Amino acid sequence: MPNSPRLPLPRVEAELSATPLNERPLTADEAERTAKAFHVLAHPIRLQLLSTIASFEEGQPCVCAISDVGVSGPTVSHHLKKLKEAGLLSSERRGTWVYYRFEPAVLAAMGRLLIKAASE
Amino acid sequence: MPNSPRLPLPRVEAELSATPLNERPLTADEAERTAKAFHVLAHPIRLQLLSTIASFEEGQPCVCAISDVGVSGPTVSHHLKKLKEAGLLSSERRGTWVYYRFEPAVLAAMGRLLIKAASE
Repeated sequence: MPNSPRLPLPRVEAELSATPLNERPLTADEAERTAKAFHVLAHPIRLQLLSTIASFEEGQPCVCAISDVGVSGPTVSHHLKKLKEAGLLSSERRGTWVYYRFEPAVLAAMGRLLIKAASE
Repeated sequence: MPNSPRLPLPRVEAELSATPLNERPLTADEAERTAKAFHVLAHPIRLQLLSTIASFEEGQPCVCAISDVGVSGPTVSHHLKKLKEAGLLSSERRGTWVYYRFEPAVLAAMGRLLIKAASE
């Protein structure tokens, strides 16, 4: 029997607690997973990279076009990796360069969690 | 002329960039302020305290009723202070105890920012 392809697991989306913060106290485990999701947005370089990619007008930006945030190449790569691991970006290699795409689903799920928690 | 009372400035709400992440690259300063806002939610103890207070059914909980998150009293106080500074909680002293109230406006503003950024 051939091996079935290994599908990537949904990441931050699955890790976010589905329970609004105003429904009941979060368990330690739920709080840990939700904090991890927000931790990805709690970094200025990651927000600059994410907004550069999300607002890019001519298709997907190449990594060569998004490194102008005043930090070294390896630092840019490190933060792009974190954003990808969190499911906020996807990437594709074409020849020499890697191209990035903004994936809005996780950000929308995080936003809904806060809005739900803020409404009675 | 009498001194006019000094009103507290809105905090995280004012510090959040009003620009959705998919509109244009954030400036370093905007990214710094937005990251700071999300940093408040990027901590499991703060999320446990916030959810305990936000879901409390009998009015405002006393600090004596919300310290059961497995950390020391001073650590609880430290995180309650961070949540207050961010505008996510308010507090009131009555006699010996301090009582806390969940303030949903900042959380709602953060949620709207993410939802707006995730929609085209």
